[in-house]
Amino acid sequence: MRKIEHLGIAVKDLEKSNRLFERLLGKMYYKEETVDGEGVKTSFFMIGDTKIELLEATREESPIAKFLEKKSEGIHHIAFDVEDINKEVERLKMEGFEILNEIPKQGADNKLVVFLHPRSTNGVLVELCQDLNFKA
Amino acid sequence: MRKIEHLGIAVKDLEKSNRLFERLLGKMYYKEETVDGEGVKTSFFMIGDTKIELLEATREESPIAKFLEKKSEGIHHIAFDVEDINKEVERLKMEGFEILNEIPKQGADNKLVVFLHPRSTNGVLVELCQDLNFKA
Repeated sequence: MRKIEHLGIAVKDLEKSNRLFERLLGKMYYKEETVDGEGVKTSFFMIGDTKIELLEATREESPIAKFLEKKSEGIHHIAFDVEDINKEVERLKMEGFEILNEIPKQGADNKLVVFLHPRSTNGVLVELCQDLNFKA
Repeated sequence: MRKIEHLGIAVKDLEKSNRLFERLLGKMYYKEETVDGEGVKTSFFMIGDTKIELLEATREESPIAKFLEKKSEGIHHIAFDVEDINKEVERLKMEGFEILNEIPKQGADNKLVVFLHPRSTNGVLVELCQDLNFKA
C-alpha cells in the first residue's frame, strides 16, 4: 500500500456531478472513461498526488446502480496503489481479509484491480490497483 | 483545495480498528488524539502524502455516534487541505455550496476546520482544513 490512488464517488448524473466537482475543487476533470465490464462511466480529477473518480452506472446491474439504490450518492470506495497486486492479495489473505476477486481484473485508467469485501474492512470497500502503464 | 488532507472513517471500537488498519496498510498509526468538542477519539495513519483518520465516538451526542446509528461503520468524510480557510469558505459560498459552520472551529491535528453539508456535495461530507502548525 504505497498511497491512496483514488477515491471513488457514486453519482447519479456524471455530467451534473462533473460541474459540481469542478466548482468544489476549482479545476476541471482531466478525462472520462467507460468501463464496460463494470457497467460504469467515470471521470477523474487530480488532487495533490491522488485522484477523485466519479462513477455513474451505465446499466441496471452495475454495482454502482445497486449502491445508489441501497444507499445513495456518496463515497463508494478507497483505492490503494500497490506495486505487485498478486503479492499484496497473498499478504492480505494471510492477514484474514476477504478478497472479492482473487484474479485481478481490468479497471479504469489502465489498472489491474482487486476488491476486498467491506465486511472485513470496517465497512469500507477497498480496491487495490496496480498500474499497467509502461514506465521507462 | 491543494490535496486530500485525510479521509475520515467512522469505527465502533478504535482499539480494534487500529489493529485492523495496521494489518491492512502494513504500518502502525502514528498518533491518537481526543477532540472533546466533537466527542471523538481519533487515530491517524500516514499513507503517501495523505492520512487516514479513524474516529470513535466518546459520547452519545457525538456526530460519529449518530452516523454509526443511522448508517454503519465506513467512510465518514473527505478533508481537503486549504491555504486560507476563510477565503475558501467565501469562494464555496459564492459557488452555492452549503456551509455547516461558517466560523472555522478547532479540529484534530492542530487544524482549523469547516464542514460543507453533504446535500450540496453529492452526498459527500466535505471538510476544509487549514493547518495551524508553525512553519519556519
